[in-house]
Amino acid sequence: MMQPVAKGLTSIIRAFSYPNVPGVLGLQTQWNSPSAFQNIRPLSMSLWPFGAQPRDFSQPNASWSPEMRRVYDHYVALCEVETVGGEKKRGPWRKLPSYNRTLKYARGGAYLSKMIQSKARLFTRSIKEHGAAFEYAIFVNKQEKRCVCVFQSGHLLEGPPGHVHGGAIATMIDTVTGGLAGCLSGPIMTANLNINYRSPIPLGSVVLIHSALDRVEGRKTFLTCRVTSTDETRLHTDATALFVSINMGHLFGT
Amino acid sequence: MMQPVAKGLTSIIRAFSYPNVPGVLGLQTQWNSPSAFQNIRPLSMSLWPFGAQPRDFSQPNASWSPEMRRVYDHYVALCEVETVGGEKKRGPWRKLPSYNRTLKYARGGAYLSKMIQSKARLFTRSIKEHGAAFEYAIFVNKQEKRCVCVFQSGHLLEGPPGHVHGGAIATMIDTVTGGLAGCLSGPIMTANLNINYRSPIPLGSVVLIHSALDRVEGRKTFLTCRVTSTDETRLHTDATALFVSINMGHLFGT
Repeated sequence: MMQPVAKGLTSIIRAFSYPNVPGVLGLQTQWNSPSAFQNIRPLSMSLWPFGAQPRDFSQPNASWSPEMRRVYDHYVALCEVETVGGEKKRGPWRKLPSYNRTLKYARGGAYLSKMIQSKARLFTRSIKEHGAAFEYAIFVNKQEKRCVCVFQSGHLLEGPPGHVHGGAIATMIDTVTGGLAGCLSGPIMTANLNINYRSPIPLGSVVLIHSALDRVEGRKTFLTCRVTSTDETRLHTDATALFVSINMGHLFGT
Repeated sequence: MMQPVAKGLTSIIRAFSYPNVPGVLGLQTQWNSPSAFQNIRPLSMSLWPFGAQPRDFSQPNASWSPEMRRVYDHYVALCEVETVGGEKKRGPWRKLPSYNRTLKYARGGAYLSKMIQSKARLFTRSIKEHGAAFEYAIFVNKQEKRCVCVFQSGHLLEGPPGHVHGGAIATMIDTVTGGLAGCLSGPIMTANLNINYRSPIPLGSVVLIHSALDRVEGRKTFLTCRVTSTDETRLHTDATALFVSINMGHLFGT
Protein backbone atom coordinates (compact mmCIF):
# COMPACT_ATOMS: atom_id res chain seq x y z
CA MET A 1 0.00 0.00 0.00
CA MET A 2 1.11 3.51 -0.69
CA GLN A 3 1.38 5.73 2.33
CA PRO A 4 -0.09 9.17 2.05
CA VAL A 5 2.50 11.92 2.13
CA ALA A 6 2.14 15.44 3.38
CA LYS A 7 2.45 17.26 0.05
CA GLY A 8 1.64 16.83 -3.63
CA LEU A 9 3.84 14.30 -5.36
CA THR A 10 3.92 16.06 -8.68
CA SER A 11 7.54 15.64 -9.51
CA ILE A 12 8.50 12.31 -8.07
CA ILE A 13 8.44 10.49 -11.36
CA ARG A 14 11.11 12.75 -12.70
CA ALA A 15 13.41 11.67 -9.92
CA PHE A 16 13.64 8.20 -11.43
CA SER A 17 15.55 9.59 -14.37
CA TYR A 18 18.14 11.38 -12.32
CA PRO A 19 21.40 10.04 -10.97
CA ASN A 20 20.93 11.33 -7.45
CA VAL A 21 17.91 9.20 -6.64
CA PRO A 22 18.31 6.60 -3.92
CA GLY A 23 18.48 3.10 -5.29
CA VAL A 24 14.84 2.17 -5.02
CA LEU A 25 14.88 0.83 -8.53
CA GLY A 26 18.08 -1.18 -8.14
CA LEU A 27 19.57 0.92 -10.92
CA GLN A 28 21.84 3.17 -8.95
CA THR A 29 25.12 1.76 -10.24
CA GLN A 30 24.28 2.30 -13.86
CA TRP A 31 22.44 5.56 -13.39
CA ASN A 32 25.09 7.15 -11.22
CA SER A 33 27.61 6.81 -14.03
CA PRO A 34 28.11 10.02 -16.01
CA SER A 35 27.88 8.25 -19.35
CA ALA A 36 24.42 6.92 -18.61
CA PHE A 37 23.28 10.34 -17.46
CA GLN A 38 24.86 12.14 -20.38
CA ASN A 39 22.74 10.36 -22.98
CA ILE A 40 23.52 12.84 -25.75
CA ARG A 41 23.59 10.23 -28.50
CA PRO A 42 22.11 6.77 -28.75
CA LEU A 43 24.35 4.55 -26.67
CA SER A 44 26.34 2.07 -28.69
CA MET A 45 26.25 -0.32 -25.74
CA SER A 46 23.04 -0.39 -23.74
CA LEU A 47 23.40 0.17 -20.02
CA TRP A 48 19.76 -0.79 -19.55
CA PRO A 49 19.48 -4.17 -17.83
CA PHE A 50 15.84 -4.99 -18.63
CA GLY A 51 15.78 -5.78 -22.33
CA ALA A 52 14.69 -3.13 -24.79
CA GLN A 53 16.02 0.36 -24.12
CA PRO A 54 13.11 2.69 -23.32
CA ARG A 55 12.42 5.39 -25.85
CA ASP A 56 13.85 8.79 -24.99
CA PHE A 57 11.12 11.24 -26.03
CA SER A 58 13.49 14.20 -25.95
CA GLN A 59 15.25 13.05 -29.13
CA PRO A 60 14.49 14.99 -32.34
CA ASN A 61 11.65 13.78 -34.56
CA ALA A 62 10.14 14.82 -37.89
CA SER A 63 7.65 17.21 -36.27
CA TRP A 64 10.40 19.48 -34.97
CA SER A 65 10.63 22.82 -36.73
CA PRO A 66 14.02 24.06 -38.01
CA GLU A 67 14.10 26.52 -35.11
CA MET A 68 13.43 23.74 -32.57
CA ARG A 69 16.24 21.69 -34.08
CA ARG A 70 18.62 24.65 -34.20
CA VAL A 71 18.21 25.45 -30.50
CA TYR A 72 18.42 21.75 -29.61
CA ASP A 73 21.64 21.33 -31.61
CA HIS A 74 23.09 24.43 -29.94
CA TYR A 75 22.67 22.91 -26.48
CA VAL A 76 23.71 19.42 -27.56
CA ALA A 77 26.98 21.00 -28.77
CA LEU A 78 27.50 22.46 -25.30
CA CYS A 79 27.34 18.96 -23.84
CA GLU A 80 30.75 18.18 -25.36
CA VAL A 81 33.82 20.43 -25.54
CA GLU A 82 37.01 19.98 -27.53
CA THR A 83 40.30 20.13 -25.67
CA VAL A 84 43.46 21.77 -27.05
CA GLY A 85 44.65 18.37 -28.25
CA GLY A 86 41.47 17.93 -30.30
CA GLU A 87 40.02 15.40 -27.88
CA LYS A 88 36.37 15.64 -26.96
CA LYS A 89 35.25 15.59 -23.34
CA ARG A 90 32.12 16.26 -21.36
CA GLY A 91 30.98 19.85 -21.37
CA PRO A 92 29.10 21.70 -18.63
CA TRP A 93 25.64 20.81 -19.97
CA ARG A 94 23.72 17.53 -19.86
CA LYS A 95 20.51 16.58 -21.64
CA LEU A 96 17.95 14.91 -19.41
CA PRO A 97 16.41 11.79 -20.93
CA SER A 98 12.61 11.74 -20.88
CA TYR A 99 10.40 8.64 -20.80
CA ASN A 100 6.65 8.28 -20.90
CA ARG A 101 6.58 6.05 -17.85
CA THR A 102 9.84 5.34 -16.09
CA LEU A 103 8.35 2.81 -13.73
CA LYS A 104 7.35 0.66 -16.65
CA TYR A 105 11.01 -0.09 -17.07
CA ALA A 106 11.74 -0.79 -13.42
CA ARG A 107 11.06 -3.85 -11.28
CA GLY A 108 10.49 -5.00 -7.76
CA GLY A 109 7.70 -4.67 -5.24
CA ALA A 110 4.00 -5.35 -5.40
CA TYR A 111 3.22 -1.72 -6.03
CA LEU A 112 5.59 -1.51 -8.96
CA SER A 113 4.07 -4.60 -10.54
CA LYS A 114 0.65 -3.07 -10.31
CA MET A 115 1.96 0.08 -11.91
CA ILE A 116 3.63 -1.80 -14.74
CA GLN A 117 0.34 -3.36 -15.67
CA SER A 118 -1.53 -0.11 -15.81
CA LYS A 119 -2.11 2.14 -18.81
CA ALA A 120 -0.87 5.22 -17.02
CA ARG A 121 1.44 7.55 -18.92
CA LEU A 122 3.36 10.66 -17.94
CA PHE A 123 1.12 13.64 -18.76
CA THR A 124 3.70 15.42 -20.92
CA ARG A 125 4.52 12.28 -22.91
CA SER A 126 1.10 10.65 -23.19
CA ILE A 127 0.27 11.56 -26.79
CA LYS A 128 1.75 9.22 -29.40
CA GLU A 129 1.46 11.52 -32.42
CA HIS A 130 4.71 13.39 -32.99
CA GLY A 131 4.32 17.14 -32.64
CA ALA A 132 0.69 17.06 -31.48
CA ALA A 133 1.31 18.00 -27.87
CA PHE A 134 4.53 18.61 -25.87
CA GLU A 135 7.83 18.43 -27.74
CA TYR A 136 10.72 19.37 -25.49
CA ALA A 137 14.23 18.65 -24.34
CA ILE A 138 15.77 19.82 -21.07
CA PHE A 139 19.46 20.68 -20.71
CA VAL A 140 20.91 21.05 -17.22
CA ASN A 141 24.07 22.87 -16.15
CA LYS A 142 24.70 21.53 -12.65
CA GLN A 143 27.72 23.77 -12.02
CA GLU A 144 25.64 26.89 -12.67
CA LYS A 145 22.57 25.34 -11.01
CA ARG A 146 20.35 26.19 -13.93
CA CYS A 147 18.69 24.60 -16.93
CA VAL A 148 17.17 25.50 -20.29
CA CYS A 149 14.32 23.68 -21.98
CA VAL A 150 13.49 24.07 -25.66
CA PHE A 151 9.72 23.60 -26.06
CA GLN A 152 7.58 23.35 -29.20
CA SER A 153 3.83 23.39 -28.55
CA GLY A 154 1.50 21.17 -30.58
CA HIS A 155 -2.04 21.74 -31.83
CA LEU A 156 -3.63 19.79 -28.96
CA LEU A 157 -2.43 22.35 -26.39
CA GLU A 158 -4.69 25.20 -27.39
CA GLY A 159 -6.20 27.61 -24.88
CA PRO A 160 -7.23 30.96 -26.37
CA PRO A 161 -7.63 30.71 -30.16
CA GLY A 162 -4.22 30.23 -31.74
CA HIS A 163 -2.33 30.28 -28.44
CA VAL A 164 -1.03 27.82 -25.86
CA HIS A 165 -3.30 27.00 -22.89
CA GLY A 166 -2.21 28.46 -19.54
CA GLY A 167 -2.42 24.96 -18.07
CA ALA A 168 -0.03 23.60 -20.69
CA ILE A 169 2.42 26.38 -19.85
CA ALA A 170 2.05 25.57 -16.14
CA THR A 171 2.69 21.91 -16.97
CA MET A 172 5.96 22.74 -18.70
CA ILE A 173 7.03 25.08 -15.88
CA ASP A 174 6.38 22.28 -13.37
CA THR A 175 8.30 19.83 -15.57
CA VAL A 176 11.34 22.07 -16.10
CA THR A 177 11.67 23.46 -12.57
CA GLY A 178 11.05 19.98 -11.17
CA GLY A 179 13.68 18.54 -13.47
CA LEU A 180 16.30 20.95 -12.17
CA ALA A 181 15.19 20.57 -8.55
CA GLY A 182 15.42 16.77 -8.91
CA CYS A 183 18.95 17.04 -10.26
CA LEU A 184 20.08 19.32 -7.44
CA SER A 185 18.12 17.99 -4.46
CA GLY A 186 17.21 14.39 -5.28
CA PRO A 187 13.65 13.10 -4.90
CA ILE A 188 11.27 16.03 -4.58
CA MET A 189 7.65 16.95 -5.10
CA THR A 190 5.98 20.19 -6.13
CA ALA A 191 4.70 22.26 -3.21
CA ASN A 192 4.02 25.61 -4.91
CA LEU A 193 3.90 27.15 -8.36
CA ASN A 194 3.33 30.90 -8.70
CA ILE A 195 2.95 31.85 -12.35
CA ASN A 196 2.59 35.24 -14.05
CA TYR A 197 1.26 35.11 -17.60
CA ARG A 198 2.65 38.18 -19.36
CA SER A 199 2.24 37.58 -23.09
CA PRO A 200 0.54 34.72 -24.93
CA ILE A 201 2.55 32.00 -26.70
CA PRO A 202 1.48 31.36 -30.31
CA LEU A 203 0.46 27.73 -30.83
CA GLY A 204 3.14 25.79 -32.69
CA SER A 205 5.92 28.21 -31.83
CA VAL A 206 9.20 27.36 -30.09
CA VAL A 207 10.09 28.97 -26.77
CA LEU A 208 12.82 28.64 -24.17
CA ILE A 209 12.04 27.79 -20.57
CA HIS A 210 14.86 28.89 -18.28
CA SER A 211 15.05 27.80 -14.66
CA ALA A 212 17.63 28.58 -11.98
CA LEU A 213 18.11 27.63 -8.35
CA ASP A 214 17.20 30.43 -5.98
CA ARG A 215 18.06 28.80 -2.64
CA VAL A 216 17.82 25.65 -0.57
CA GLU A 217 16.44 25.84 2.97
CA GLY A 218 16.42 22.48 4.70
CA ARG A 219 14.01 20.26 2.76
CA LYS A 220 12.85 23.17 0.57
CA THR A 221 14.29 23.95 -2.86
CA PHE A 222 13.25 27.32 -4.33
CA LEU A 223 13.63 28.03 -8.06
CA THR A 224 12.84 30.74 -10.55
CA CYS A 225 11.57 30.24 -14.09
CA ARG A 226 11.13 32.36 -17.22
CA VAL A 227 9.51 31.46 -20.54
CA THR A 228 10.91 33.56 -23.40
CA SER A 229 11.11 33.69 -27.17
CA THR A 230 14.14 31.80 -28.53
CA ASP A 231 16.03 35.10 -28.99
CA GLU A 232 15.11 35.95 -25.38
CA THR A 233 13.79 39.39 -26.35
CA ARG A 234 10.18 38.58 -25.36
CA LEU A 235 9.09 37.43 -21.89
CA HIS A 236 5.99 35.25 -22.10
CA THR A 237 5.74 33.96 -18.55
CA ASP A 238 7.67 34.11 -15.29
CA ALA A 239 7.24 31.97 -12.21
CA THR A 240 8.63 30.78 -8.92
CA ALA A 241 8.52 27.16 -7.81
CA LEU A 242 8.98 25.42 -4.48
CA PHE A 243 9.80 21.74 -4.20
CA VAL A 244 10.03 19.69 -1.02
CA SER A 245 12.43 16.78 -0.62
CA ILE A 246 10.70 13.52 0.09
CA ASN A 247 11.62 10.08 1.29
CA MET A 248 11.14 7.78 -1.70
CA GLY A 249 10.08 5.04 0.70
CA HIS A 250 6.73 6.79 1.03
CA LEU A 251 5.96 5.84 -2.55
CA PHE A 252 6.55 2.17 -2.00
CA GLY A 253 5.31 1.76 1.53
CA THR A 254 8.70 0.95 3.03
CA MET B 1 -3.58 39.64 -38.26
CA MET B 2 -3.88 39.13 -34.54
CA GLN B 3 -2.66 42.00 -32.43
CA PRO B 4 -0.44 41.15 -29.50
CA VAL B 5 -2.03 41.83 -26.14
CA ALA B 6 -0.33 42.75 -22.92
CA LYS B 7 -1.10 39.60 -20.96
CA GLY B 8 -1.53 35.85 -21.47
CA LEU B 9 -4.74 34.92 -23.23
CA THR B 10 -5.27 31.67 -21.43
CA SER B 11 -8.93 31.92 -20.82
CA ILE B 12 -10.32 33.73 -23.77
CA ILE B 13 -11.70 30.68 -25.48
CA ARG B 14 -13.91 29.99 -22.52
CA ALA B 15 -15.52 33.34 -22.99
CA PHE B 16 -17.12 32.15 -26.21
CA SER B 17 -19.30 29.79 -24.26
CA TYR B 18 -20.63 32.39 -21.87
CA PRO B 19 -23.60 34.68 -22.29
CA ASN B 20 -21.78 37.85 -21.29
CA VAL B 21 -19.42 37.88 -24.21
CA PRO B 22 -19.74 40.70 -26.74
CA GLY B 23 -21.28 39.54 -29.97
CA VAL B 24 -18.13 38.79 -31.90
CA LEU B 25 -19.61 35.54 -33.09
CA GLY B 26 -22.95 36.99 -34.06
CA LEU B 27 -24.54 34.66 -31.57
CA GLN B 28 -25.35 37.04 -28.78
CA THR B 29 -29.12 36.81 -29.12
CA GLN B 30 -29.24 33.08 -28.77
CA TRP B 31 -26.50 32.84 -26.20
CA ASN B 32 -27.85 35.54 -23.97
CA SER B 33 -31.04 33.57 -23.51
CA PRO B 34 -31.19 31.67 -20.22
CA SER B 35 -32.39 28.48 -21.87
CA ALA B 36 -29.40 28.30 -24.17
CA PHE B 37 -27.06 28.96 -21.28
CA GLN B 38 -28.80 26.48 -19.04
CA ASN B 39 -28.10 23.54 -21.32
CA ILE B 40 -28.82 20.96 -18.65
CA ARG B 41 -30.41 18.49 -21.03
CA PRO B 42 -30.11 18.01 -24.77
CA LEU B 43 -32.23 20.72 -26.32
CA SER B 44 -35.33 19.47 -28.06
CA MET B 45 -35.07 22.37 -30.48
CA SER B 46 -31.58 23.39 -31.47
CA LEU B 47 -30.69 27.03 -31.00
CA TRP B 48 -27.49 26.50 -32.94
CA PRO B 49 -27.67 28.23 -36.34
CA PHE B 50 -24.79 26.47 -38.13
CA GLY B 51 -26.02 22.95 -38.77
CA ALA B 52 -24.97 20.17 -36.42
CA GLN B 53 -25.01 21.06 -32.72
CA PRO B 54 -21.47 20.90 -31.34
CA ARG B 55 -20.80 18.13 -28.87
CA ASP B 56 -20.94 19.18 -25.24
CA PHE B 57 -18.04 17.30 -23.62
CA SER B 58 -19.37 17.87 -20.12
CA GLN B 59 -22.19 15.37 -20.67
CA PRO B 60 -21.86 11.96 -18.91
CA ASN B 61 -20.20 9.13 -20.82
CA ALA B 62 -19.45 5.45 -20.16
CA SER B 63 -16.06 6.20 -18.61
CA TRP B 64 -17.59 8.08 -15.70
CA SER B 65 -17.37 6.28 -12.37
CA PRO B 66 -20.49 5.91 -10.21
CA GLU B 67 -19.07 8.58 -7.89
CA MET B 68 -18.53 10.98 -10.80
CA ARG B 69 -22.10 10.41 -11.93
CA ARG B 70 -23.51 10.78 -8.42
CA VAL B 71 -21.89 14.19 -7.88
CA TYR B 72 -22.85 15.30 -11.40
CA ASP B 73 -26.48 14.30 -10.84
CA HIS B 74 -26.48 16.12 -7.51
CA TYR B 75 -25.55 19.42 -9.18
CA VAL B 76 -27.79 18.86 -12.20
CA ALA B 77 -30.68 18.52 -9.74
CA LEU B 78 -29.78 21.92 -8.26
CA CYS B 79 -30.21 23.46 -11.71
CA GLU B 80 -33.98 22.97 -11.44
CA VAL B 81 -36.21 23.52 -8.43
CA GLU B 82 -39.82 22.51 -7.89
CA THR B 83 -42.29 25.20 -6.88
CA VAL B 84 -45.09 24.65 -4.36
CA GLY B 85 -47.45 24.02 -7.24
CA GLY B 86 -45.26 21.19 -8.52
CA GLU B 87 -43.97 23.26 -11.41
CA LYS B 88 -40.29 23.13 -12.26
CA LYS B 89 -38.26 26.27 -12.70
CA ARG B 90 -34.63 27.27 -13.02
CA GLY B 91 -32.59 26.77 -9.89
CA PRO B 92 -29.61 28.79 -8.73
CA TRP B 93 -27.05 26.60 -10.53
CA ARG B 94 -26.15 26.35 -14.21
CA LYS B 95 -23.97 23.81 -15.99
CA LEU B 96 -21.44 25.34 -18.38
CA PRO B 97 -21.32 23.62 -21.75
CA SER B 98 -17.82 22.60 -22.87
CA TYR B 99 -16.62 22.23 -26.46
CA ASN B 100 -13.29 21.12 -27.84
CA ARG B 101 -13.02 24.15 -30.11
CA THR B 102 -15.71 26.75 -29.95
CA LEU B 103 -14.35 28.74 -32.86
CA LYS B 104 -14.85 25.76 -35.11
CA TYR B 105 -18.54 26.45 -34.79
CA ALA B 106 -18.35 30.19 -35.35
CA ARG B 107 -18.01 32.21 -38.54
CA GLY B 108 -16.78 35.48 -39.91
CA GLY B 109 -13.42 37.09 -40.40
CA ALA B 110 -10.23 35.94 -42.07
CA TYR B 111 -8.73 34.91 -38.78
CA LEU B 112 -11.70 32.76 -37.86
CA SER B 113 -11.58 31.01 -41.22
CA LYS B 114 -7.95 30.19 -40.73
CA MET B 115 -8.75 28.83 -37.29
CA ILE B 116 -11.56 26.69 -38.56
CA GLN B 117 -9.22 24.98 -40.94
CA SER B 118 -6.64 24.18 -38.32
CA LYS B 119 -6.34 21.03 -36.25
CA ALA B 120 -6.13 22.96 -33.00
CA ARG B 121 -8.16 21.64 -30.07
CA LEU B 122 -8.79 22.95 -26.57
CA PHE B 123 -6.13 21.39 -24.32
CA THR B 124 -8.62 19.93 -21.82
CA ARG B 125 -10.81 18.40 -24.56
CA SER B 126 -8.18 17.29 -27.08
CA ILE B 127 -8.16 13.54 -26.33
CA LYS B 128 -10.90 11.58 -28.09
CA GLU B 129 -10.85 8.46 -25.90
CA HIS B 130 -13.48 8.73 -23.18
CA GLY B 131 -11.99 8.76 -19.70
CA ALA B 132 -8.34 8.87 -20.82
CA ALA B 133 -7.66 12.47 -19.84
CA PHE B 134 -9.88 15.24 -18.42
CA GLU B 135 -13.50 14.37 -17.61
CA TYR B 136 -15.28 17.26 -15.95
CA ALA B 137 -18.39 19.38 -15.68
CA ILE B 138 -18.55 22.88 -14.22
CA PHE B 139 -21.60 24.20 -12.36
CA VAL B 140 -21.86 27.91 -11.70
CA ASN B 141 -23.96 29.72 -9.10
CA LYS B 142 -23.93 33.33 -10.28
CA GLN B 143 -25.91 34.63 -7.30
CA GLU B 144 -23.33 33.28 -4.88
CA LYS B 145 -20.47 34.11 -7.27
CA ARG B 146 -19.00 30.64 -7.00
CA CYS B 147 -18.75 27.40 -8.91
CA VAL B 148 -18.05 23.70 -8.40
CA CYS B 149 -16.41 21.38 -10.90
CA VAL B 150 -16.55 17.61 -10.66
CA PHE B 151 -13.34 16.22 -12.16
CA GLN B 152 -12.33 12.63 -12.92
CA SER B 153 -8.67 12.21 -13.94
CA GLY B 154 -7.71 9.74 -16.66
CA HIS B 155 -4.65 7.53 -17.07
CA LEU B 156 -2.92 9.95 -19.47
CA LEU B 157 -2.61 12.60 -16.75
CA GLU B 158 -0.02 10.87 -14.61
CA GLY B 159 2.75 12.73 -12.79
CA PRO B 160 4.19 10.84 -9.85
CA PRO B 161 3.43 7.12 -10.07
CA GLY B 162 -0.27 6.57 -9.55
CA HIS B 163 -1.08 10.25 -9.06
CA VAL B 164 -2.23 13.22 -11.13
CA HIS B 165 0.45 15.49 -12.62
CA GLY B 166 0.79 18.92 -11.00
CA GLY B 167 0.44 20.47 -14.45
CA ALA B 168 -2.87 18.68 -15.03
CA ILE B 169 -4.12 20.01 -11.70
CA ALA B 170 -2.97 23.52 -12.67
CA THR B 171 -4.80 23.10 -15.99
CA MET B 172 -8.07 22.29 -14.23
CA ILE B 173 -7.61 25.16 -11.76
CA ASP B 174 -7.09 27.54 -14.70
CA THR B 175 -10.14 26.09 -16.45
CA VAL B 176 -12.47 26.31 -13.44
CA THR B 177 -11.40 29.71 -12.10
CA GLY B 178 -11.39 31.07 -15.65
CA GLY B 179 -14.86 29.65 -16.24
CA LEU B 180 -16.24 31.50 -13.22
CA ALA B 181 -14.32 34.70 -14.00
CA GLY B 182 -15.65 34.61 -17.56
CA CYS B 183 -19.22 34.27 -16.28
CA LEU B 184 -18.84 37.17 -13.85
CA SER B 185 -16.58 39.57 -15.75
CA GLY B 186 -16.95 38.73 -19.44
CA PRO B 187 -13.94 38.16 -21.69
CA ILE B 188 -10.83 37.68 -19.56
CA MET B 189 -7.41 36.12 -19.68
CA THR B 190 -5.27 34.51 -17.01
CA ALA B 191 -2.70 36.85 -15.46
CA ASN B 192 -1.63 34.84 -12.39
CA LEU B 193 -2.06 31.40 -10.84
CA ASN B 194 -0.59 30.72 -7.38
CA ILE B 195 -1.01 27.06 -6.50
CA ASN B 196 -0.22 25.15 -3.30
CA TYR B 197 -0.03 21.38 -3.71
CA ARG B 198 -0.94 19.90 -0.32
CA SER B 199 -1.77 16.24 -0.90
CA PRO B 200 -1.51 14.17 -4.07
CA ILE B 201 -4.61 13.19 -6.09
CA PRO B 202 -4.79 9.45 -6.91
CA LEU B 203 -5.01 8.87 -10.65
CA GLY B 204 -8.53 7.92 -11.72
CA SER B 205 -10.19 9.38 -8.65
CA VAL B 206 -12.94 12.01 -8.59
CA VAL B 207 -12.39 15.35 -6.88
CA LEU B 208 -14.28 18.61 -6.50
CA ILE B 209 -12.79 21.91 -7.63
CA HIS B 210 -14.43 24.81 -5.84
CA SER B 211 -13.88 28.39 -6.92
CA ALA B 212 -15.28 31.64 -5.53
CA LEU B 213 -14.97 35.30 -6.40
CA ASP B 214 -12.70 37.16 -4.03
CA ARG B 215 -13.01 40.68 -5.44
CA VAL B 216 -13.09 42.79 -8.60
CA GLU B 217 -10.77 45.80 -8.88
CA GLY B 218 -11.16 47.63 -12.17
CA ARG B 219 -10.13 45.21 -14.92
CA LYS B 220 -8.87 42.66 -12.40
CA THR B 221 -10.95 39.71 -11.16
CA PHE B 222 -9.48 37.83 -8.17
CA LEU B 223 -10.68 34.33 -7.29
CA THR B 224 -9.89 31.57 -4.84
CA CYS B 225 -9.85 27.86 -5.58
CA ARG B 226 -9.73 24.61 -3.58
CA VAL B 227 -9.43 21.04 -4.82
CA THR B 228 -10.95 18.57 -2.33
CA SER B 229 -12.14 14.99 -2.04
CA THR B 230 -15.82 14.63 -2.97
CA ASP B 231 -16.78 14.50 0.73
CA GLU B 232 -14.72 17.69 1.19
CA THR B 233 -12.79 16.21 4.14
CA ARG B 234 -9.43 16.20 2.34
CA LEU B 235 -7.78 19.28 0.83
CA HIS B 236 -5.58 18.36 -2.12
CA THR B 237 -4.70 21.78 -3.52
CA ASP B 238 -5.54 25.42 -2.94
CA ALA B 239 -4.88 28.36 -5.19
CA THR B 240 -5.56 31.98 -6.02
CA ALA B 241 -6.15 33.21 -9.56
CA LEU B 242 -6.12 36.62 -11.18
CA PHE B 243 -7.82 37.32 -14.50
CA VAL B 244 -7.69 40.54 -16.48
CA SER B 245 -10.59 41.75 -18.61
CA ILE B 246 -9.72 42.12 -22.26
CA ASN B 247 -11.15 43.70 -25.33
CA MET B 248 -12.21 40.83 -27.59
CA GLY B 249 -11.30 42.97 -30.57
CA HIS B 250 -7.66 42.25 -29.83
CA LEU B 251 -8.22 38.66 -30.86
CA PHE B 252 -9.63 39.54 -34.22
CA GLY B 253 -7.60 42.60 -35.07
CA THR B 254 -10.53 45.00 -34.94
